[in-house]
Amino acid sequence: MKLSDAQLDALNWNEHGLIPAIVQSSSDARVLMMAWVNRESLQLTIATGETVFFSRSRQELWRKGATSGNTQTVERIEVDCDSDALLITVSEAGAACHTGSRSCFDAALLVGEA
Amino acid sequence: MKLSDAQLDALNWNEHGLIPAIVQSSSDARVLMMAWVNRESLQLTIATGETVFFSRSRQELWRKGATSGNTQTVERIEVDCDSDALLITVSEAGAACHTGSRSCFDAALLVGEA
Repeated sequence: MKLSDAQLDALNWNEHGLIPAIVQSSSDARVLMMAWVNRESLQLTIATGETVFFSRSRQELWRKGATSGNTQTVERIEVDCDSDALLITVSEAGAACHTGSRSCFDAALLVGEA
Repeated sequence: MKLSDAQLDALNWNEHGLIPAIVQSSSDARVLMMAWVNRESLQLTIATGETVFFSRSRQELWRKGATSGNTQTVERIEVDCDSDALLITVSEAGAACHTGSRSCFDAALLVGEA
């Protein structure tokens, strides 16, 4: 599967050609991470069925799990009302976070109780 | 409640002084929206216990529900491993989206079934 140019053009890419992607687990709806996609990584995500992001720090494609084995299989991709954010529902293998935590949001709490 | 300057400085604000905030419902974990906060709107969110964002299009503070009445009461704020994204768990009153949809991500589907 592949998006058309018209579908890609309909998204509101930012000044760097990126859109934020929120990744949520299909098992219990935990939000696992937020990353960024460019046109190519979004096409690869859809074509391969596994998440591929764009690393802003390394300025390159980042196939989730390429080194860790902790891949994310895409079940659904929703677009928000302004077409400037994506919500990707995944079935995850292993930890999403490079720290070894399941979710990148397990890192710290500003408000509330753990 | 109020964050210290050190807590605010520990967050990785982008070149515009903003951080993306994912808003998730505490009732069923639906992701409702993604918006941006600056230092002032984050402090106000914590001080008032209701979400306050920074509108990039209007370049001003945006008290969620100020006109619609659809406020979001903060239950938890988590910070990710890079300190450059927030996950805000809320108890919501009414629709999160200006379109009247419950979630801004109800707008369109790129992959998967509704």
